[in-house]
Amino acid sequence: MNQDARTLTLAEIAERLGARLEGDGERRVSGLATLREAEPDQVAFLANRAYLKDLPGTRAAAVLLAPGHAESCPAARLEMDNPYLGYAELSRLFDPLAGRTPAGIHPTAVVAADVRLGAGVAIGPQAVIESGVELGDEVVIGPGCVVGADSTIGPGSRLHANVTVCHGVVIGARAILHSGCVIGGDGFGFAHDGARWHKIAQLGGVVLGDDVEVGSCSSIDRGALGDTSIGDDVKIDSQVQIAHNVQIGDHSALAGCVGIAGSTRVGRHCMLGGGVGLSGHLTIADGVQVTGMSLVTNSILEPGIYSSGTGAMDNAQWRRNAVRFKQLDDIARRLARLEKTGRSG
Amino acid sequence: MNQDARTLTLAEIAERLGARLEGDGERRVSGLATLREAEPDQVAFLANRAYLKDLPGTRAAAVLLAPGHAESCPAARLEMDNPYLGYAELSRLFDPLAGRTPAGIHPTAVVAADVRLGAGVAIGPQAVIESGVELGDEVVIGPGCVVGADSTIGPGSRLHANVTVCHGVVIGARAILHSGCVIGGDGFGFAHDGARWHKIAQLGGVVLGDDVEVGSCSSIDRGALGDTSIGDDVKIDSQVQIAHNVQIGDHSALAGCVGIAGSTRVGRHCMLGGGVGLSGHLTIADGVQVTGMSLVTNSILEPGIYSSGTGAMDNAQWRRNAVRFKQLDDIARRLARLEKTGRSG
Amino acid sequence: MNQDARTLTLAEIAERLGARLEGDGERRVSGLATLREAEPDQVAFLANRAYLKDLPGTRAAAVLLAPGHAESCPAARLEMDNPYLGYAELSRLFDPLAGRTPAGIHPTAVVAADVRLGAGVAIGPQAVIESGVELGDEVVIGPGCVVGADSTIGPGSRLHANVTVCHGVVIGARAILHSGCVIGGDGFGFAHDGARWHKIAQLGGVVLGDDVEVGSCSSIDRGALGDTSIGDDVKIDSQVQIAHNVQIGDHSALAGCVGIAGSTRVGRHCMLGGGVGLSGHLTIADGVQVTGMSLVTNSILEPGIYSSGTGAMDNAQWRRNAVRFKQLDDIARRLARLEKTGRSG
Repeated sequence: MNQDARTLTLAEIAERLGARLEGDGERRVSGLATLREAEPDQVAFLANRAYLKDLPGTRAAAVLLAPGHAESCPAARLEMDNPYLGYAELSRLFDPLAGRTPAGIHPTAVVAADVRLGAGVAIGPQAVIESGVELGDEVVIGPGCVVGADSTIGPGSRLHANVTVCHGVVIGARAILHSGCVIGGDGFGFAHDGARWHKIAQLGGVVLGDDVEVGSCSSIDRGALGDTSIGDDVKIDSQVQIAHNVQIGDHSALAGCVGIAGSTRVGRHCMLGGGVGLSGHLTIADGVQVTGMSLVTNSILEPGIYSSGTGAMDNAQWRRNAVRFKQLDDIARRLARLEKTGRSG
Repeated sequence: MNQDARTLTLAEIAERLGARLEGDGERRVSGLATLREAEPDQVAFLANRAYLKDLPGTRAAAVLLAPGHAESCPAARLEMDNPYLGYAELSRLFDPLAGRTPAGIHPTAVVAADVRLGAGVAIGPQAVIESGVELGDEVVIGPGCVVGADSTIGPGSRLHANVTVCHGVVIGARAILHSGCVIGGDGFGFAHDGARWHKIAQLGGVVLGDDVEVGSCSSIDRGALGDTSIGDDVKIDSQVQIAHNVQIGDHSALAGCVGIAGSTRVGRHCMLGGGVGLSGHLTIADGVQVTGMSLVTNSILEPGIYSSGTGAMDNAQWRRNAVRFKQLDDIARRLARLEKTGRSG
Repeated sequence: MNQDARTLTLAEIAERLGARLEGDGERRVSGLATLREAEPDQVAFLANRAYLKDLPGTRAAAVLLAPGHAESCPAARLEMDNPYLGYAELSRLFDPLAGRTPAGIHPTAVVAADVRLGAGVAIGPQAVIESGVELGDEVVIGPGCVVGADSTIGPGSRLHANVTVCHGVVIGARAILHSGCVIGGDGFGFAHDGARWHKIAQLGGVVLGDDVEVGSCSSIDRGALGDTSIGDDVKIDSQVQIAHNVQIGDHSALAGCVGIAGSTRVGRHCMLGGGVGLSGHLTIADGVQVTGMSLVTNSILEPGIYSSGTGAMDNAQWRRNAVRFKQLDDIARRLARLEKTGRSG
């Protein structure tokens, strides 16, 4: 898609990023691209040594890079210690969405009479805001969203189209909720009488801290008793499932398709790879990383990197190995016997 | 979130639950909490021995527990054989949502002229009910829901906000469908002509029995020929995918992120853990439990507990083991040779 | 559900399918069913040898089959080399949905003044079409859909109810998007400053080729810089997650619950089984098949079938084997030592 025709001078960019500029500060640029694809009116960035090979040939007007990589740069340089961070900031400066949403309530939105609205709130077409809701300043509610009774959404938060926030949910400041996500659906709780299931009403809520992002089609269930709790600056990708009474510590990041079962507590600064599954009632320490599609069935009490599973291989080879997995305990016992006797029993 | 200011006496609770009360039947309580967190105006419960340590110190007005745990209880006692079941019933008594939805059709809802509505039906703002639909008595349709042509929803069922029920779906009594779930999208069926795919129209429907619950963002696809069928009292968590022509027997429960491929038949009273995957065209017997993230590629014909995969471990240790998995067949062959010869061949 | 009362003669069907008819061309049929379930006014098909046993007893008016299976057929025969392809075509002839949607814009839809509409476009109730959108001829937008600013949807495409297409997305001709799917939510991109996350604005878009199908509740994220790209004739099942800047080649098929991490390139004619996970920044060659729930962490450069994981087994047996997996490197080392020395070290 086209990036909008916003332009900035290199001097303006250097100032916004706190970068040291080597080159023509008056030069205007209108966007951001990779080293390889940048046009002469765009800024590129070098944040990963793997792309150093693309630096000498770039056509970019300027390159955002660390001081150590300056020599082979054919363009103006915007030097800073963490150029990836600079890229993040620059991407937001060129975001065509920024500031594009007009404030005001669309006439087709249904807003209960007692809803408290901050300054500059925008509510899109076909949205529904139920009774008792409070929306902070500059909150943007996209088309088709539903915000359930008595929920609170903090200032600067944005709900993209077709988001559902159920009743009694508390969302902090500057949240970004992507389309199709659901915050506060019932947790999965039933008691069994020996013959059939009896629903446990989910009386808790969901509390999201400040600066939380939730991806498309993700779901965060409400607590059974007490709340499901997501800390500040927690980033959640698409298709993630967070069960009732889970707690996620500040600054943790969960990649796509992660599933966390009920009452598990994830620490601060954790990173869960795509498709990771955590069993219920676990404790995961601060600073734990779990690699993609790992299954965690026990608490992890030390920071570090954890993994499970096996990588894909040729199917014929895999069939031979997978069948041996079912014999693994037997193999281990036979090996131990052989070590003891020098020959098979 | 606050629980509403509904209060009950202990005598009323004992009667509703069929519990034996030891204590002041006139005492009023206004909610439910864990042993540790209960305030003096709340009831707590002891349903798991792990929490027995919290019993002596609880501040609850009364505790729901089994007769055998009565002695160390510092509060009034509500004794019953299955206190977890009692907790479930009590949670529903204190559910602030119960009875809160006003009946009637919101003026922004779009309801086709020929829709048949039972008594006490509620249809929320921005909902769409297409032609030929039948909604039973006391059905509640949340804001933003779409119910497709010729579908039927049984009495007492509730669709939370932004649920999609496609055309020709049959839903029994007392269903609870959570936000973002989709019932009756097309199954995944294509024929290949050697060069490209040709769509197979999905001519079947979906039939849900009575007392079915479906979690947030879950999807149940319609049948190719014949229906996808979900039995009575089946409980389905969030982010679950059920493919075309799957059959799930009565009273089974599927945890979050389960995926079931086409035409597989799951028995009655089965329990599938989070993230379990079942291949297509399998038969799973009654009473089968599968633990979290297991892959099932063959039919399971006996009740029992089944598992696959390996738990997470330290990444460095895992790397060493996972690479050996690719040599497992070779390891087994070498071990057998060694057993035979007493030394390597 | 009932199939509508559309009828065709066997001669008409033979002509539409290019099949050779043996039997009464004037006979009228009104639907399609399996060999076992077909009524005397329906056509059945034999596309899989496993169902050959059902052929002699079928009550179908006619059977679609390959010439080699003609002898034991008790009914009229519609012979063609690829009867499964014939079934696909026939299913579409009997699709009650085909041609059922009336053109025109529902009065409750909110359509921006500058939207360009092709001939015969249908927009359902409560839909929102933002500024700058272009909808090709015969596009059908279901109830509750949102199409974001500046997106383009090609001719003949259909969005079922409650689909979200974000801003700046390009969709080709004849796409089918199922309910709850989200095309163009933000990719998951953040820079870390050592203490907290900084959002990277996702400035790219999503481009879908022609004849793409996306299942219920699936999500395809927009690119960070440059677009996420889905080729022609790509079929995506339900609950699939495709991250930013992924590229999928023409004619590939992704089963339910697949997750693909950022910037991975999948070739043409690939097939990914249910629950497969691909790490980021990989290259997957044309013609690769990956079996269900496999984890792919390295590029696959040759066509073929690839797998990982282990199948489910009895839980007690599994526990014994899974614990040995953690000793696997040790087992391999001890075996090698034993082979060398004839006895344990």
